[in-house]
Amino acid sequence: PQHLAGGRAMEKAAGSPSLGGSYPQKNAEILSSQYGINLFLAGLLLTFAWAVHAVGISKSHLLSYLITLMLIQLLWMLWYLCRSCTQRRLIRDKDTHAGARWLKCGITLFAVITLVLDSFKIGYYIDFSNCLSPTEGIFPVTHAVHTILQVYFLWCHAKDIIQSFKTLERFGVIHSVFTNLLLWTNGVLTESKHQLNEHKERLITLGFGNITIILDDHAPQCNCTTTTLCSIFSQGIYYLYPFNIEYHILASTMLYVLWKNIGRKVEHHQQHKTLFKFHGITVGMIFGLIVLTSTIAIVVVYLIQIGRSKIKSELALTMFYLHAIFVLALMCTAGIVALLIYRLEDRSLDNSKNPARKLDAELLVGTAAGSWLLSWGSILAIICAQAHPKYTWYNLPYSILVIIEKYIQNLFIIESIHREQEKVNDDIKTLRIVTISRGNTLSLTPSYKEIYSDRAAHDDGEVPCLFKGTSDFSFCSRNSVTNHKRRILKNIAAFLFLCNLSLWIPPAFGCRPEYDNGLEEIVFGFEPWIIVVNLAMPFSIFYRMHSAASLFEVNCKT
Amino acid sequence: PQHLAGGRAMEKAAGSPSLGGSYPQKNAEILSSQYGINLFLAGLLLTFAWAVHAVGISKSHLLSYLITLMLIQLLWMLWYLCRSCTQRRLIRDKDTHAGARWLKCGITLFAVITLVLDSFKIGYYIDFSNCLSPTEGIFPVTHAVHTILQVYFLWCHAKDIIQSFKTLERFGVIHSVFTNLLLWTNGVLTESKHQLNEHKERLITLGFGNITIILDDHAPQCNCTTTTLCSIFSQGIYYLYPFNIEYHILASTMLYVLWKNIGRKVEHHQQHKTLFKFHGITVGMIFGLIVLTSTIAIVVVYLIQIGRSKIKSELALTMFYLHAIFVLALMCTAGIVALLIYRLEDRSLDNSKNPARKLDAELLVGTAAGSWLLSWGSILAIICAQAHPKYTWYNLPYSILVIIEKYIQNLFIIESIHREQEKVNDDIKTLRIVTISRGNTLSLTPSYKEIYSDRAAHDDGEVPCLFKGTSDFSFCSRNSVTNHKRRILKNIAAFLFLCNLSLWIPPAFGCRPEYDNGLEEIVFGFEPWIIVVNLAMPFSIFYRMHSAASLFEVNCKT
Repeated sequence: PQHLAGGRAMEKAAGSPSLGGSYPQKNAEILSSQYGINLFLAGLLLTFAWAVHAVGISKSHLLSYLITLMLIQLLWMLWYLCRSCTQRRLIRDKDTHAGARWLKCGITLFAVITLVLDSFKIGYYIDFSNCLSPTEGIFPVTHAVHTILQVYFLWCHAKDIIQSFKTLERFGVIHSVFTNLLLWTNGVLTESKHQLNEHKERLITLGFGNITIILDDHAPQCNCTTTTLCSIFSQGIYYLYPFNIEYHILASTMLYVLWKNIGRKVEHHQQHKTLFKFHGITVGMIFGLIVLTSTIAIVVVYLIQIGRSKIKSELALTMFYLHAIFVLALMCTAGIVALLIYRLEDRSLDNSKNPARKLDAELLVGTAAGSWLLSWGSILAIICAQAHPKYTWYNLPYSILVIIEKYIQNLFIIESIHREQEKVNDDIKTLRIVTISRGNTLSLTPSYKEIYSDRAAHDDGEVPCLFKGTSDFSFCSRNSVTNHKRRILKNIAAFLFLCNLSLWIPPAFGCRPEYDNGLEEIVFGFEPWIIVVNLAMPFSIFYRMHSAASLFEVNCKT
Repeated sequence: PQHLAGGRAMEKAAGSPSLGGSYPQKNAEILSSQYGINLFLAGLLLTFAWAVHAVGISKSHLLSYLITLMLIQLLWMLWYLCRSCTQRRLIRDKDTHAGARWLKCGITLFAVITLVLDSFKIGYYIDFSNCLSPTEGIFPVTHAVHTILQVYFLWCHAKDIIQSFKTLERFGVIHSVFTNLLLWTNGVLTESKHQLNEHKERLITLGFGNITIILDDHAPQCNCTTTTLCSIFSQGIYYLYPFNIEYHILASTMLYVLWKNIGRKVEHHQQHKTLFKFHGITVGMIFGLIVLTSTIAIVVVYLIQIGRSKIKSELALTMFYLHAIFVLALMCTAGIVALLIYRLEDRSLDNSKNPARKLDAELLVGTAAGSWLLSWGSILAIICAQAHPKYTWYNLPYSILVIIEKYIQNLFIIESIHREQEKVNDDIKTLRIVTISRGNTLSLTPSYKEIYSDRAAHDDGEVPCLFKGTSDFSFCSRNSVTNHKRRILKNIAAFLFLCNLSLWIPPAFGCRPEYDNGLEEIVFGFEPWIIVVNLAMPFSIFYRMHSAASLFEVNCKT
């Protein structure tokens, strides 16, 4: 402890703002991350074993493992909540960037739907209790308790910067991160199996006999006690899964930021309240809502038409592709316009340490890779296929646009979240009033000079021209141009936000042309392509929700 | 450009050492990384398509793609070399941590063996030129030129911190990174196919008929012109592949560090020459060499015995497991001893920005995950299997030890590379002489006081006791204790280095009990388990070489 204090003193003396901590902290970091990875890998293999119907491994083994993990997390969260109640002084620092209010609201919404899902599962278990193992009943109950406590925990502690008892905290947080990731994996797998079954049923309807079709994990082998409720439960579950999946991935990213923040020293930035206002983004909202409603309509028609007959399927696919091409082209244009506006007013970027933002940027590029993989698969299939039914040609521009749109959108979002916040406007107005009232910039009181010199460093678009002796008129016109640009940017962010939300719907609710157009399956083979889609699709779906969240933030910040 | 200059000026004013750069640099970073990822994904899908025998995609398509990438990289490297010759002043900063001499020597060694491989491939192509496509001849020629120029490039420029023409540089470097990664993937796949074929041939010999066995990608369908040479070439190629694989992954990590360094501002650390000396590590070397020779012997016996008959296979497996358990247990003990020594003398860690070190640490944990996945698979299989032949039980301690050993070793390596280098010893000697000659610590000249206060911050184990008025005697004994600890650490690092090198050999040269013990294949099914092994094994093999390299560095630094 003596040496430790010495090390800390040295770090303070060195005054490095980005200190990673003295040794025991680094030690705890590696110890805990390796523990988390192993926890996750073991769970992943259990899930994999269940998915490939390994000998001797049943669903109840997997569920037992997940229940154990959730119970450990519950205990840890209770311990943490108690300790932080009794010893309030221990947690003083807060990361203002982590756990934004809208993020908490988002996660609460998803959690509520997850609770509905859990109650459906409990109902389903009660109906089929004769032939289901008890773990299938215990799981949703534990999961519901886990969900409620975790949301409460995140509301209270997502911004914490933990400084004490680091090792136990680290283990608990990383345990929570990977427990949520495993629950996400489990949700994704169940959802994929369901989609695959639906796809196989469609193939049977369309009369494809050359593929070995085995329906997987279907209804239990005993009769339901109340038939109507049963079908509501078993059908309803699959419409609720997408929200459950988003809930877990969101929770694990928030917990990961909490983990990264442990032991960090923060400089205290004054943070602006970022409020969402509908005012001034009407155009973007209107276009966005048009896209949203049309997408929902397309999805409904698609799901009704697909697999009915060959012609109906082809029509549904053509309709889907044309709509998507149109939307993606609009999004590309909006993104390019936004980037051009940024090029007009070059502002320096904020490069301070910020784990929440770093994770956001990495997740955007990382999860986009999932959908890029699928798009490259489609492009390759179109180039190599021997026969080309007409509707498959729409797949080519669609796939190319998916790649380009994500490329541009990532550039836009990452630049937006790195730009220094525009704190200038209000101050400038004050400054202007002072300037006008005194008629001389040089007679500013010291306090205003301070504001001024502070701002000048952050913004070199407006204030310098004031100093150079330009007239008030040119200053005002400059300001209005800036406001005009800002309004365009806000509209674009709002439009892209709604578009991303729209594009989340089709894959999340089972509208997957990658299965249905058949071209990739012919070129790559049924099984290899199914494996690629099932691995890449979850990331592709997550990308849409994550970019929507980021664009919401951009809209608030701009 | 005016605003840009303003932004730069602001950053300089803020004096932040870890500046990420003004906007255009961040822009270039995201633009180029997204380009690289897409390049990689397209190549990955081509490789995948070839591996699953997709309709209309042949090996020559894949090779053409790789040749194109290599040619683009060649052009870029030539442009870069020319430009840096003519404009020497542009590249002044060097990252002293990147591209260490021993790393360059290592990559040169692997590159030379890769050139031998290329010449073998050219010979093979000439022998079978009747029935091979021209790309199979062009590929090794291009690859040889590419290898020579790339090694020259890395020798000259691995330490560069590029500050000018950032965008084009970024694109070139990231292109090189992903080209090497694709060549690595290609090497890994060829190697895996070969191993899988050998495994299937063994299964045929052992009389397993229930698995659909199709030998993949075997000898070409025409006669060889010179039979003896042909068999030397086709056999020899597979013994050279492991080195080719290591060469590409090493090159891509070095290039990645170059990419991360673009536009960075470095504080100028004075770096110590880290020389490797055999002196003082005799014990570690002797034990390490014993492990190395015994491992080679075991591998030879294993490869001769396995698949001959059921009894011989079981004997070979038992021998392999017992040997591995013994070695891993020794390594665990050594790692624990090293960590305990670190706990005795607590020194603060160096947390300065260092992309090379950060990548090293991430790769260690990331690639260890590959072998952890395999180990968890084995553990799960042993728990769930219905029948347990005696030799499979050895698999359980083996798998558990693999997990624990990597866990401990990662902790040891990451702490070692983060510890501040021991620059103290020489200074302390001088200090001691001064102390003795003047007989009074307080009469130190100001310059020595400076050294002292500088060191005291870095090392709180030795110097403080001097100040507290302890006698010279106790100081000397402390110093000898430190030296003693240091010698133990050096021996442990040397021993672990040789052990890791030893453990690289079995999987790289086809000694893979994960295939041969059959237990996992029965539990998970043949195909699922083969997929898991083929995905995880490359990372597991890379881990061993990478940890060996890191341990070599640790040995030099300690």
